[in-house]
Amino acid sequence: MVSVNGPVGVERTEDEREALDELLDIRQSIDNIDAALVHLLAERFKFTQQVGRLKAAHGLPPADPDRERAQIHRLRSLAEESRLDPAFAEKFLNFIVAEVIHHHEQIAATSPTAD
Amino acid sequence: MVSVNGPVGVERTEDEREALDELLDIRQSIDNIDAALVHLLAERFKFTQQVGRLKAAHGLPPADPDRERAQIHRLRSLAEESRLDPAFAEKFLNFIVAEVIHHHEQIAATSPTAD
Repeated sequence: MVSVNGPVGVERTEDEREALDELLDIRQSIDNIDAALVHLLAERFKFTQQVGRLKAAHGLPPADPDRERAQIHRLRSLAEESRLDPAFAEKFLNFIVAEVIHHHEQIAATSPTAD
Repeated sequence: MVSVNGPVGVERTEDEREALDELLDIRQSIDNIDAALVHLLAERFKFTQQVGRLKAAHGLPPADPDRERAQIHRLRSLAEESRLDPAFAEKFLNFIVAEVIHHHEQIAATSPTAD
């Protein structure tokens, strides 16, 4: 359920009502996008957990600076194409990768094959 | 292009080669998901820019704590359904909302209708 803040007990003008209707409509689209984002992130972490187990089983280091540089470069250029701020795309990837490395360290710490 | 770190000039065993093939395959899926995430984020910010303009035009405050609470609650339960860590989903939303509020403040600062 979406909610809109505003002064209580104040009568709204026609113009304000239209603006609030528009706001609720846009928020519904944002909620749909957020559901898609959550489901994609869940799938992404399933894949990175797989990577973590693979790396732990073969003694590969959790972080991979070359791979991260390639990802940053690719995401910045995808962001430019889709008119997303490339700096934000990079910040977003760093945010995700920090969580992934945290997961990988946990896997390495509990895996009998990791050193 | 995906890359794999590892010792240079060291011959790989059959087992290691298989592990690296699997790693490259998983990374391709991660790259596909990341492209989808970037495009969804670009759409999401288009909608929140629209919200920002609407709020600025009608003098509504950039932040809306009730809406944010409802979003957090919804995203945490979507995360549970899809086996994503709910705490991460909440952190993710906070990360996005911080960027959105930053955009809205910029819009309010440049809009002639904002106070």
